[in-house]
Amino acid sequence: MVRNSLGRLIPESFNGKNVIPFSDPFSLQPKGFRASRPLTRLNPGQKKLLPGLREAIQAAGLKDGMTISTHHHLRNGDALLAQVVREIDALGLRDIRIASSSIHPAHAEIIPFIEKGVISALECGVNGLIGELVSRGELSCPITVRTHGGRARALISGEIPVDVAFIAAPCCDDYGNMNGYYGPSACGSLGYAQVDAQHARTVVAVTDNLVPYPASPVSIPQTMIDYVVRIDTLGDPKKIVSTTTRITTDPVGLQIAKYAAQVIEAAGVLCDGFSFQTGSGGISLAVADNVRTLMRSAGIKGSFGCGGITGYFVDMLEEGLFETLFDVQCFDLKAVDSIGRNRHHLEISADMYANPFNAGAVVNRLDAVILGATEVDVDFNVNVNTESNGYLLHNTGGHSDTAAGARLAIIVAPSIRGRLPIVRDAVTTVTTPGETVDVIVTERGIAVNPRHQGLRGELLRRGLPVKDIRQLQEEIYHITGRPRPLEFEDEVVALIEYRDGSIIDVVRKVKK
Amino acid sequence: MVRNSLGRLIPESFNGKNVIPFSDPFSLQPKGFRASRPLTRLNPGQKKLLPGLREAIQAAGLKDGMTISTHHHLRNGDALLAQVVREIDALGLRDIRIASSSIHPAHAEIIPFIEKGVISALECGVNGLIGELVSRGELSCPITVRTHGGRARALISGEIPVDVAFIAAPCCDDYGNMNGYYGPSACGSLGYAQVDAQHARTVVAVTDNLVPYPASPVSIPQTMIDYVVRIDTLGDPKKIVSTTTRITTDPVGLQIAKYAAQVIEAAGVLCDGFSFQTGSGGISLAVADNVRTLMRSAGIKGSFGCGGITGYFVDMLEEGLFETLFDVQCFDLKAVDSIGRNRHHLEISADMYANPFNAGAVVNRLDAVILGATEVDVDFNVNVNTESNGYLLHNTGGHSDTAAGARLAIIVAPSIRGRLPIVRDAVTTVTTPGETVDVIVTERGIAVNPRHQGLRGELLRRGLPVKDIRQLQEEIYHITGRPRPLEFEDEVVALIEYRDGSIIDVVRKVKK
Repeated sequence: MVRNSLGRLIPESFNGKNVIPFSDPFSLQPKGFRASRPLTRLNPGQKKLLPGLREAIQAAGLKDGMTISTHHHLRNGDALLAQVVREIDALGLRDIRIASSSIHPAHAEIIPFIEKGVISALECGVNGLIGELVSRGELSCPITVRTHGGRARALISGEIPVDVAFIAAPCCDDYGNMNGYYGPSACGSLGYAQVDAQHARTVVAVTDNLVPYPASPVSIPQTMIDYVVRIDTLGDPKKIVSTTTRITTDPVGLQIAKYAAQVIEAAGVLCDGFSFQTGSGGISLAVADNVRTLMRSAGIKGSFGCGGITGYFVDMLEEGLFETLFDVQCFDLKAVDSIGRNRHHLEISADMYANPFNAGAVVNRLDAVILGATEVDVDFNVNVNTESNGYLLHNTGGHSDTAAGARLAIIVAPSIRGRLPIVRDAVTTVTTPGETVDVIVTERGIAVNPRHQGLRGELLRRGLPVKDIRQLQEEIYHITGRPRPLEFEDEVVALIEYRDGSIIDVVRKVKK
Repeated sequence: MVRNSLGRLIPESFNGKNVIPFSDPFSLQPKGFRASRPLTRLNPGQKKLLPGLREAIQAAGLKDGMTISTHHHLRNGDALLAQVVREIDALGLRDIRIASSSIHPAHAEIIPFIEKGVISALECGVNGLIGELVSRGELSCPITVRTHGGRARALISGEIPVDVAFIAAPCCDDYGNMNGYYGPSACGSLGYAQVDAQHARTVVAVTDNLVPYPASPVSIPQTMIDYVVRIDTLGDPKKIVSTTTRITTDPVGLQIAKYAAQVIEAAGVLCDGFSFQTGSGGISLAVADNVRTLMRSAGIKGSFGCGGITGYFVDMLEEGLFETLFDVQCFDLKAVDSIGRNRHHLEISADMYANPFNAGAVVNRLDAVILGATEVDVDFNVNVNTESNGYLLHNTGGHSDTAAGARLAIIVAPSIRGRLPIVRDAVTTVTTPGETVDVIVTERGIAVNPRHQGLRGELLRRGLPVKDIRQLQEEIYHITGRPRPLEFEDEVVALIEYRDGSIIDVVRKVKK
């Protein structure tokens, strides 16, 4: 065990691989070349269409010990990963690693295959039951949680060599040209899968909507696709995209959102060229609503909105408040519709979105990002991975990526959630280092990272309820009481990888 | 010297590299992995904008003996290559190779720098004076002529490692996002340059139209661009795209075009889903005009048009005769305008267009292509590189790529050009092997490759003037007389590389 720069105890190796302890957000330099795919040749007349997933797995040469991937644009509606795993089992393959862009609660279907040894590790973060079972020591499956940018980096740097990528293709032709805009499983952007298409050894397009050649527009081109498989359904359209994302109506959330917008205004970033990201949560959308009002009244024309895109950002694009949307993932149907028709609603890869090891990701150009938290601590570290019970329940997403990139990273969270205080002495799990977090906004007060004394002064001048983070913590503890520390075993069940590949924290087995 | 399968004498090495003799169009298999770029890191706040080309050359670490590239979308209006070469000279660098996508007559400006040793080889085809001087032995500069698809393959396979790519970016932001749609040097598609962006060691975007971040849409993303340079002008807009491309009015050309369209009809490919490519020449456009009329009258809905795109194909897209255009290069202003606004006018890379070593190029899906020739021979081999004086005057373009890919490759040419017969015993230079050429159409008769007896029968049934190629040759010789054979020295001054990297022919120094 070694301590990383945040004092977290990190094993020297995990699941057979050496571990680099986290040092700081910006100094680790990449080595070597971008990973690459084998050269191949397909002559005129040769076909790619195979009768089923099983044939594709065989054609791709998947063997025991290899790594597969899927992407999570179909979210909790995705039926592809489970189908692939069932076919892998049927072929008698074992010890397969999954390096998908994310795992959702629906994928609890693969638990029996983890138990059976078909799947032996998850090289990606999980949302839901699998993480809980692993945290409780009831499922043996080493997990490495990665940020969206970090996952792109891991594939691009060759750290995780994906042997076979299965890409859910909502609109696809028999040569593998695809987009996510049209069809029963339309999900919009295919930004995460674009990385797999460029870096996996073999790439299989799987579609429930085989269209005449050529599928158009082309989000992932035929040149990257080795095989095409048509299946009955990629998933449950109702769960692929929530039909709408809604602004919170909770008064606490609305107060937080108002403060957050005032922080953005006070920081001086809200001028022509403003760039912005929020998630799809109710408070985030309420912040966007407040920012929109401020932009309108001041006649500000922003440059871009980015991230997972909601209908709310589509409205802002159409209203002229943004010139462009950079979309790695569509959060709702309105976003899916927009990306299929608006040329300035741009589909971007996870590489372009957030990879720290390229010639510059979009997150580097963000003025402000609104982010959530399950916990923060007095050093401004943020946890979004584990819950107050210590269970690994959430993937990191773009949290650490945007926090590192944006000029202003604002955490919005109610001061108390489920009777538990949001501000801790130390977060259970560090997802995002405090060095990259600028402001924490609760309904009870605003804490500014001591690195930003100027901003702190400006907020005070504007009469906003700025509080020292420890003062804020004490006020909350006064109501909630000091939370009882969680107890863990020594056993490390998951790594929390920072975007640069170093390990910022681990998840340990929770004591019963 | 060895003989390749077409009987051409090929040196065993050229300019320090071993030569693979051409065998056949489809069997050479690639080895290894796609070439890749070094991993890099650009943190938030770091800039890419440099004051000038000289600083970019220095920042990129260009050294004696290295290779640079540019792209030819600005055609004969391009001023970038010459500016780059002047700066390279000013920095005292020598023995630099140029691996651009093509060299145009305007680039005769670099001749003094070849004479001076600044430039020591051209890893690309040339149009114009440089090729003539090299053919006459008056300029010492080994040339390797490549097809568009073959050039993509050479970069992608790592056969030609480009150290520094300079990309002319008609619309570009300070982080290197770019498109070719807007600005004084708008050229439309940047399809050739997309390959350089993915495979060169260092990539410099050069623009005369620096726009606020982000440039949108994005044809080449910021993640691939190391440096950005603003210069006064990328070139002469009047020469970048001809304002219009026109259908021939010459009766001979119109007769040829009519025959060619009838061949397409007779071949049975003219049905729903039809895909088609022509060049921008007057006869080619006349064929397109005939095909368009046939499609309209039969109510046929084509799938795609591809290649270098003209306004004529834009009209066909807008009329609904094609679903999609695949555009690697815009030939006129109408195409430039269309690619900037029509979502089904798709920009594609030279890799996707024609590279034989990927998972399937667009040319593989072509039903019919119309191609030109400076000479053809009785084995259906085609020459587009050298003229009747033996001088290397033309680049190959997509000629061999589309001929290999398309189900029906039709050569259109007047039977006599400049008093010389089009059909020879053996072409001066083999550009495209006869095995991939299906029909040769002249105003005096149509020759069908003996591989297509069925088509020959159908043409005869339809009353078309089908002639054996030797009979056609004799009829033409009857008018022109037998051409005097050219005389060459032994010295090889250029290689004609087939799309797979094997050498299909050489150009020898012409005897004075």
